[in-house]
Amino acid sequence: MIREITAQELDPDSFIAEKVEEIRHSVGDGLAINALSGGVDSSTVTLLGHRALGERLNTVFIENGLMRAGEAGQVSEFFRALGVTVEVVDARAEFFAALKGVTDPEAKREAITQTFYRHVFGRLVRERGAKHLLQGTILTDVDETVAGIKRQHNVFEQLGISPQAAFGYRILEPLVQLRKDGVRKLGQALGLPKELFQRIPFPGPALAARVIGEATPERIETVRQATQVVERLLPGHGAFQYLAILHEDRVTGMRDGRREFGQQIEVRCWNSVDAREATPTRLPFESLEQLAHEITRAVPGVVSVTYNIASKPPSTIEAV
Amino acid sequence: MIREITAQELDPDSFIAEKVEEIRHSVGDGLAINALSGGVDSSTVTLLGHRALGERLNTVFIENGLMRAGEAGQVSEFFRALGVTVEVVDARAEFFAALKGVTDPEAKREAITQTFYRHVFGRLVRERGAKHLLQGTILTDVDETVAGIKRQHNVFEQLGISPQAAFGYRILEPLVQLRKDGVRKLGQALGLPKELFQRIPFPGPALAARVIGEATPERIETVRQATQVVERLLPGHGAFQYLAILHEDRVTGMRDGRREFGQQIEVRCWNSVDAREATPTRLPFESLEQLAHEITRAVPGVVSVTYNIASKPPSTIEAV
Repeated sequence: MIREITAQELDPDSFIAEKVEEIRHSVGDGLAINALSGGVDSSTVTLLGHRALGERLNTVFIENGLMRAGEAGQVSEFFRALGVTVEVVDARAEFFAALKGVTDPEAKREAITQTFYRHVFGRLVRERGAKHLLQGTILTDVDETVAGIKRQHNVFEQLGISPQAAFGYRILEPLVQLRKDGVRKLGQALGLPKELFQRIPFPGPALAARVIGEATPERIETVRQATQVVERLLPGHGAFQYLAILHEDRVTGMRDGRREFGQQIEVRCWNSVDAREATPTRLPFESLEQLAHEITRAVPGVVSVTYNIASKPPSTIEAV
Repeated sequence: MIREITAQELDPDSFIAEKVEEIRHSVGDGLAINALSGGVDSSTVTLLGHRALGERLNTVFIENGLMRAGEAGQVSEFFRALGVTVEVVDARAEFFAALKGVTDPEAKREAITQTFYRHVFGRLVRERGAKHLLQGTILTDVDETVAGIKRQHNVFEQLGISPQAAFGYRILEPLVQLRKDGVRKLGQALGLPKELFQRIPFPGPALAARVIGEATPERIETVRQATQVVERLLPGHGAFQYLAILHEDRVTGMRDGRREFGQQIEVRCWNSVDAREATPTRLPFESLEQLAHEITRAVPGVVSVTYNIASKPPSTIEAV
């Protein structure tokens, strides 16, 4: 049982001191490695790890082909400015090969997990001689995995899987007692600038979690373009998270007076404190109409746009 | 080329006199038959046909298993009060047999068309010795079929298909110069009570047009239940049409703390004058939330509800 530390209870300075000590103790005089995605959790754990280990923590950005437009460049620039060197590792071919023909959501998550931990990380760890992987797992990830709602890609111990035996390295999860609001408070104390520690959550399986059905390079590109529109238009409404989902169902549309059996994008925008419960943000209709207009104009093949109106539960934040 | 008569131009009394004459001339001293679905178009053509032919017009309601809850009973009661006898013909088994395994939208429409005109109507016509079928086709149906956007189930002549040769009877379409607003004006003049001539449009393929993928009895029942919620909650917003669509895509949801890989209902509610162009009705968010709450509560297996926010074009009114 993991003891939760609420955002209210969290004293960032003593928490940082304690975790720095634990990380140093675990890693000893060896090397650790961590994957930075640019999300709040992995950004915070990167700064915490560098506070503990300095250059003995290798931070990599895995370009898996499933990230948002321009993300690798933005994230490494950003951390360079904070004094952290980020190495970009191109693993697109490996991820798309693993995802080929996979349509079941859990099988997709599993394909990404295996590619990430076993193939790509296994190779990096061997190349560098690192024995520890530092991870930004938070309590909500554990809850949902243990409850069987979604398999989060970064939860092993709680499922009784030994990463040491399975992948050849140990995983350290210093944020596992916190939820999203606690991580934001911690990130701020570690010096993450506001624009980053307030970033909206982005899932571990990245855009593969945002397509229903097979995650091909072409379909990922479609949802990537819709995501750009959503992330450009939806800041400023105080939402917890917003996202675009590419459906597999085809719907009838029309362009230039002719029938086009096209694709549909679903937009979700959530109000939530900690992702356990969430309600759709009451966006002004002008914003909804602008979303639909710009997505159907900018994204090839999309003729229909919907807005999620169901709460979590019975919905979940992401669709797959 | 069909000459359009706009609602503004339409003089109902002289239009009725002219069409009564034409129908009498075409049918001579024979029998005609017509199918009443309870929608505005078929209700109006039923009253027009009875004005022309009296008891020599046989009006039937085809129970195809794809209609809304309680529809057969309501429609025949309603017309009995107007002095028109409606015979209910149970053809559920024939329609579901024709739809089995069919997922492509055009193939579904074609299966329904063939079952309706060739099998069920062919039999009724032979049994009764009728030579003419009276139909409520309107100009928008013709436009969309000729443009190749959607194959409307009641358009043959415009596609160069002879019903006489194909099905053994002639089709009369006295409303084909009108659009929806003109039909409403005409229906009112013919004595249709306000609640009926202002009914929202319902498609020819009925609930089969409201499921993406195969129209099984079980999936039709799911969308029928969602339709009941939508039709109970959405009158009173001045909308042109509102509908529920069952998606084939599965999305992750949760019930009682456990993962449920469930179904999604999309709600569309349109503002439009004549269905050629349409915009989503700006419903209050309270109404959207109530819709989602009641649909996920009342309809088994549904964990997610969306609201359409795209306009026509590039969307269309119905999804398939």
